[in-house]
Amino acid sequence: MWTFDHFPTAKVAKTYGAGPSAAFLDHVRKSSLRVAGGCSASFISPNGLVMTNHHCVVECVGGLSTSTQNYVENGFITHSTADERECPDFEIDQLVAITDISRTIQSAIAGKSGAAQNAALRAAQAAAQATCGKDPAVRCDVVSLYHGGVYDLYRYKRYQDVRLAFAPEFSVAQYGGDPDNFNFPRFNFDIGLLRVYENGKPAVTPDYLRFSPNGTKAGELIYVSGNPGGTDRELTLSQLVYQRDYALPATLSLLAERRGIIEDFQRLGSEQRREANEDRFYTENSIKAFTGERYALVDPAFFAKKVREERELRAAVAKNPKLAGYASAWDQIAAVQTVRLRMSAQIQATSTFRRGLFDDAFALVRAGDERLKPNAVRLPEYTDAGLVGIAASLEANQPTYLDLEERQQAFNFDHLRAVLGADNPLTKTFLGRESPDGLAHRLFSQTKLGDAAVRKALFDGGAPAIAASTDPLIVYARSIDPTLRAIRKATEDQIDAPTRSAAERIAKARFAVYGSSVDPDATFSPRLSYGAVKGFDDASGTFVPPYTTIGGLFGRTTGAAPYVLPKSWLDAQSSLDPATPMNFSGTLDVVGGNSGSPVVNAQGQVVGLLFDGNIFSLGGDYGYDAAKNRSIAVDSRALIAGLSKVYHADSLVSEIETAAAK
Amino acid sequence: MWTFDHFPTAKVAKTYGAGPSAAFLDHVRKSSLRVAGGCSASFISPNGLVMTNHHCVVECVGGLSTSTQNYVENGFITHSTADERECPDFEIDQLVAITDISRTIQSAIAGKSGAAQNAALRAAQAAAQATCGKDPAVRCDVVSLYHGGVYDLYRYKRYQDVRLAFAPEFSVAQYGGDPDNFNFPRFNFDIGLLRVYENGKPAVTPDYLRFSPNGTKAGELIYVSGNPGGTDRELTLSQLVYQRDYALPATLSLLAERRGIIEDFQRLGSEQRREANEDRFYTENSIKAFTGERYALVDPAFFAKKVREERELRAAVAKNPKLAGYASAWDQIAAVQTVRLRMSAQIQATSTFRRGLFDDAFALVRAGDERLKPNAVRLPEYTDAGLVGIAASLEANQPTYLDLEERQQAFNFDHLRAVLGADNPLTKTFLGRESPDGLAHRLFSQTKLGDAAVRKALFDGGAPAIAASTDPLIVYARSIDPTLRAIRKATEDQIDAPTRSAAERIAKARFAVYGSSVDPDATFSPRLSYGAVKGFDDASGTFVPPYTTIGGLFGRTTGAAPYVLPKSWLDAQSSLDPATPMNFSGTLDVVGGNSGSPVVNAQGQVVGLLFDGNIFSLGGDYGYDAAKNRSIAVDSRALIAGLSKVYHADSLVSEIETAAAK
Repeated sequence: MWTFDHFPTAKVAKTYGAGPSAAFLDHVRKSSLRVAGGCSASFISPNGLVMTNHHCVVECVGGLSTSTQNYVENGFITHSTADERECPDFEIDQLVAITDISRTIQSAIAGKSGAAQNAALRAAQAAAQATCGKDPAVRCDVVSLYHGGVYDLYRYKRYQDVRLAFAPEFSVAQYGGDPDNFNFPRFNFDIGLLRVYENGKPAVTPDYLRFSPNGTKAGELIYVSGNPGGTDRELTLSQLVYQRDYALPATLSLLAERRGIIEDFQRLGSEQRREANEDRFYTENSIKAFTGERYALVDPAFFAKKVREERELRAAVAKNPKLAGYASAWDQIAAVQTVRLRMSAQIQATSTFRRGLFDDAFALVRAGDERLKPNAVRLPEYTDAGLVGIAASLEANQPTYLDLEERQQAFNFDHLRAVLGADNPLTKTFLGRESPDGLAHRLFSQTKLGDAAVRKALFDGGAPAIAASTDPLIVYARSIDPTLRAIRKATEDQIDAPTRSAAERIAKARFAVYGSSVDPDATFSPRLSYGAVKGFDDASGTFVPPYTTIGGLFGRTTGAAPYVLPKSWLDAQSSLDPATPMNFSGTLDVVGGNSGSPVVNAQGQVVGLLFDGNIFSLGGDYGYDAAKNRSIAVDSRALIAGLSKVYHADSLVSEIETAAAK
Repeated sequence: MWTFDHFPTAKVAKTYGAGPSAAFLDHVRKSSLRVAGGCSASFISPNGLVMTNHHCVVECVGGLSTSTQNYVENGFITHSTADERECPDFEIDQLVAITDISRTIQSAIAGKSGAAQNAALRAAQAAAQATCGKDPAVRCDVVSLYHGGVYDLYRYKRYQDVRLAFAPEFSVAQYGGDPDNFNFPRFNFDIGLLRVYENGKPAVTPDYLRFSPNGTKAGELIYVSGNPGGTDRELTLSQLVYQRDYALPATLSLLAERRGIIEDFQRLGSEQRREANEDRFYTENSIKAFTGERYALVDPAFFAKKVREERELRAAVAKNPKLAGYASAWDQIAAVQTVRLRMSAQIQATSTFRRGLFDDAFALVRAGDERLKPNAVRLPEYTDAGLVGIAASLEANQPTYLDLEERQQAFNFDHLRAVLGADNPLTKTFLGRESPDGLAHRLFSQTKLGDAAVRKALFDGGAPAIAASTDPLIVYARSIDPTLRAIRKATEDQIDAPTRSAAERIAKARFAVYGSSVDPDATFSPRLSYGAVKGFDDASGTFVPPYTTIGGLFGRTTGAAPYVLPKSWLDAQSSLDPATPMNFSGTLDVVGGNSGSPVVNAQGQVVGLLFDGNIFSLGGDYGYDAAKNRSIAVDSRALIAGLSKVYHADSLVSEIETAAAK
């Protein structure tokens, strides 16, 4: 997961004969995109056509659907740009420039700790972002690499007019559903096509990736360009133990119960099934992801490697008097874990609050308060730069499902009480004398926040409008916000700041001992990984070959969900070559956030569309295991075959192929 | 958790001045009872009146309820024995005699391993049970103490005509619901009264416990006589790690999801709420219990103590050449954990099958098959001794809720597929090409097993009737049973047998090093523990006093579930003394199975009714921590006040008080 400005070209050349040229790196970086919210994408034509995964656009597909026109179930196919429809609250970012601002940030926080460090960091970051000006089409993020070893300012071109051009039916996009998720062999047609617009017209995007006419062969060198969301490979043992023993089990139990609730909500009827579809996907996906992460941490061999690595680094630090200042950092982080455990109930109890209208209410209350303050002392997401995204999200005309939100929030309140205990003063603050169900019902049965115009009026009206509002969600958010802020501040001052200080010292120790021969932890910013098309041995030792085929897709279909194919595919079966590669596995080092990344060959041509990893890839959060960790992509040959022979999306296919031939 | 025949009287005397006399032990043992299915109880009058917890009789209360007469919600109060109603499928056992059969059993299995050991053990146990004859009023169990260090034959008097005499409303019995469960302060009126009958008349039970007129004082010596269900205090480190890292997290996720499903099932309507009430309680209770167990194992201090203990014992074995034969036992158990992990998916996937009619179908199929074999080679629960309980259970006229069972089984099938993976041959065996929902619907929409007469006919008809049945549940059970038996056999031969052999060697090593100064792991057989009425410091260090009061109960009531009081209590408030002790905490060493145990003072008088422990008591599965582990009981003074002033159950109060005065 290398940054584009420090790619180990020589290392690639050593293994594969040749590494990427500077022109290749530049071209791939400019053609690659980030989907705000957690995915990756790429331009595949000069007219703003964007390729990503279906599961990265499903929120848009759901948002455009109604109870009578269900694009999630039936797919969304266009035959000209006139059919394309704007995705509510979608943002796509293209990285334009990286500036090293390490010295500015590090000197601002030097010698400070706790609350003072947080305030200084916030002010320095806000100042750095402010240098980008106020053009909403420019987005600037401060990216901290190596846990504060490096700070960069990433400047993006921001696209906010994003339209849906193509989405297949959910059943084939996410074929095999939860049972197949994070497994291989796979047979998914997990693609979504978007188009970015400027001034009401398709954007002109001269940097784009060309489709390969030939796909790949087993063993071939491939690259993946995307935005891995976050990894924890530099965590200390005490942090890993905390993850293993407390954080992951608590999260998994919460998610499992939520899954049960969603499942049964969906049984109430087809409308409820539609409403909760996304929630279900994300919940199931998270369960598998965290399960995989936990498995890595309880794997004795994996954990032993972590123990060995930490011991070696600490021994090297202990031996070198120049590094004496770093030696206590590990114990400092261990001490923070005790604080974390003590604060875990309140953090966990309120962790579920960031959802839907409930979250919107808090965003409105906070946006009102924060705008009264100077930029430098605001909560970071409410700086002028941050408010662009918040405003877009609040004002987007997205469907809201009050019944589902009420159910989810009732569960969240119930979970809060279970975690904190009935006698905890915080429980009384959040619930008063109401029951979880009663409170959720009172809030959601009368709120008007489901109306985007109401949200916009409250946002535009700022603090006075918020103070005057009698909307029950706003009233509740107002009353609770000081408590939530206090919890957040305690977390930042007592956990985040001391962790940051110690982690930075460990990062410096690591640099001093090993140099920059390791890639930094992922931070949902553009990275390039390399590897090969390759199968793997499964848990029983059987070799799983790297390609599946379209024939295999039809063979796997039982007719019962999640192994059903839509009519479009069944109708097209005779016109499809069963030998066409469907999905393939490779050794690319990817994690969540990489979804939608283009997989390119040594010529920079698209040969696949990354959408997942195998179950062992989930341990990748804590470390990359070349023997077992595999990425999974849709083969470019299946993409073209599907678009042309199944969906007859001729104008899109022609646009892609014409662009590729240029 | 001492057995009555090896109680450490001298140890009690050393701390408290006097230990129990032989007469005391004899009297308490004979007055104590076991409720088959997992609870404890005691006789409190010479006319067969039995005291246990509400949560131990709630299944009966639910079974007697209908959609129009909900005794769970409204309580069940009798004013004469004529009002008492028989509990479907209830069994109460009174321990009559203990015979040491260690030599017989140990010589039968000596030198055998794997399948041969299992077969020999089964035959020896069946033979021992057969010595008790065929009288269904006599129950004989082989109890293995110290993991095979001792084998005893426990002879019980079995009561199968058990009638409900009193149950309060669920809301006050389990006041505070899941949030308060396993917490203290508590305010529960968790009592249920039963009566055992012989020949249609109240049984004559000369051994019974007398109620104390005075209750207890803080610091007073108390005893609890009950049947702790099972502890794991002698597990090796590798077994504890397996529990901590694999078994408990997997179980907790399963239960959390099930809880979500039950919650939403209950939202479908008041009838569904009633149907799933018990399931919800057991599920929530299990979640808390396993959570507490896991907390103990991830507590560094607790685990360090376990590490120290094992190191010390192994060092002592290593030092003594006479014990050389035991030294490899720990590594042998560690090797078994690898096997367990390899087999865990199939075990976990099928662990959910033992429920309701689905389980009845398997019991019918197996009862048919097993009765064709000689007693000694049958599955142990299908020996002549075991069949008494199975027949009673199958033939009991219990209500069945097909909608709930279908939903639960659909979830179980879904869970099976998730755990095994869609490509696992076992998934195909269990699901064929059907979806989890489709299969469950097919099985439950057409089965006739909900009718007790149909079950009885199939049981009585044996193998030929089973072979001829076209009931979809029977057909399914027939087709799947060989696979389930194979999984069970593999588990027994590859996990249970080698674990038993090694654990027995470790038990012998422990005897050799420490003598019999430790109590054996609990085995749901009668035990006596001692301790004192005592408060504790909660997680934040605040002292929690040992008594709550009836006034506190009213003060805690918000009117929103689970903090609502039924009308009976609200009406009686003015007649109750708010200072009356409601619940109390003590240092008694108890675990699940102890529910319903009488708490008695040094005179053997009832001073409380045990119903729970605090959150730290859950770690008691792995070891007793005197500083934090607390038992929780209803105070006898609250019991009498409630029965007389709230429920006006005058005939029962008079029976109890008259008996006490004798």
